[in-house]
Amino acid sequence: MRLKAVIAYDGTAYYGWQIQRVEPTIQSMLESCLEHVCKAPVNVAGAGRTDSGVHAYAQVAHFDWDHYLPADKLILAMNALLPPDIRVLQLDEVHGKFHARFDAKSKSYLYRINRDRFASPFEMRYSLHYSYPLDHSLLEKCASLIEGEHDFTAFQATGTDVVSTLRKVESVQILSTSHATGSYLCVRIQANGFLRKMVRFLVGTMLEVSGGKRKLEDIQRALETGDRRCTGVPAAARGLFLEKVYY
Amino acid sequence: MRLKAVIAYDGTAYYGWQIQRVEPTIQSMLESCLEHVCKAPVNVAGAGRTDSGVHAYAQVAHFDWDHYLPADKLILAMNALLPPDIRVLQLDEVHGKFHARFDAKSKSYLYRINRDRFASPFEMRYSLHYSYPLDHSLLEKCASLIEGEHDFTAFQATGTDVVSTLRKVESVQILSTSHATGSYLCVRIQANGFLRKMVRFLVGTMLEVSGGKRKLEDIQRALETGDRRCTGVPAAARGLFLEKVYY
Repeated sequence: MRLKAVIAYDGTAYYGWQIQRVEPTIQSMLESCLEHVCKAPVNVAGAGRTDSGVHAYAQVAHFDWDHYLPADKLILAMNALLPPDIRVLQLDEVHGKFHARFDAKSKSYLYRINRDRFASPFEMRYSLHYSYPLDHSLLEKCASLIEGEHDFTAFQATGTDVVSTLRKVESVQILSTSHATGSYLCVRIQANGFLRKMVRFLVGTMLEVSGGKRKLEDIQRALETGDRRCTGVPAAARGLFLEKVYY
Repeated sequence: MRLKAVIAYDGTAYYGWQIQRVEPTIQSMLESCLEHVCKAPVNVAGAGRTDSGVHAYAQVAHFDWDHYLPADKLILAMNALLPPDIRVLQLDEVHGKFHARFDAKSKSYLYRINRDRFASPFEMRYSLHYSYPLDHSLLEKCASLIEGEHDFTAFQATGTDVVSTLRKVESVQILSTSHATGSYLCVRIQANGFLRKMVRFLVGTMLEVSGGKRKLEDIQRALETGDRRCTGVPAAARGLFLEKVYY
């Protein structure tokens, strides 16, 4: 049977989601955990390939499981075997053709920016500290430019090999929040797909526009021409969270 | 001149506030940071002596500073020298007789309990994970019993040497909250003073009463007779935050 897992993780200690030359990754931790349970290799496919240091409130993945342990017991075994910075929040049987990545209609990422004068000790792993002035109306204008279907080639990591760089950004929200640990500005971006480091390039460029280091027209130009000279430095991985996958 | 500092810290890596045989402590980090700046020993006095692993949103401390660097520059130097899990949030000149501990009218501590089925990866350092059922009305009854002036001798660490074990608990609040990282039950206790591990003994006992392991009368008895057999196991340090000091 095919199982769908909802997974939360603190990405600080991992080289991203995907299995690669360097270890550990979230995918490798999950696969070796499952292999430990069933004594056979298991392939886990995730909805979004989060980068090194990026977190997830609710990553979604699927894998095939034809072993004696039912899903409601397997979730307990997995959480007992996995380190505490990776938790399987839900594990459910789905139809045999469900695919975590290809069936996803859209995904939302949240980027958290700590706005206090001094970075909160409780948020050093979970936000970018940025205490310089920010122009909210400029950020909203950036958001409007980014929304819609565009070629995001200027907002991806170099050396990436994808068939199409066209993506539809359904919404860009600017949210202000305040907790006991400090004040935050969050950028939530929902799209039908994301290029590598796309959210971080978008947020990094938005911060440069809002801080006056770059003009609003740079975003427009980057989207129209794909000119990478118009985009900023990608914002740090630690502020980024895969928030939700929509099916 | 005397300076008053408001300090936030993640206590995970420290042996509590107070300088003792084992290192590092928050006080020792602050004192060596100040000594590094002025090349002379500086004594830092804190309002509350938080235990090993306990955090602070806003600890208050005072020290005397008669060196060339003014407070608005010293705060920058301190935050540049201190590790990122300790931040000086505010630094202000106060009158020469101000004492962080003796002048404090009351303090409030917050105890955070993660109520999700599986412990949130983002909260493993900052909460106790407790997924068993909790009886809110029983917790409220515990809170009412604890409020008021009592002899809290049964709710302190053994081997503690204090003149009086009488303390006035001004309020015990039970708060339910929910974030992207999970659901929480928080217990906020405000009192004119706290014995060693008092909040953790109180919360630990409340959880045992609410979970049916202990009776409500045990709290009453522990307060009336000081019988330690009536108190529970202290709740883990990682869920506890010194929240505010009132002057």
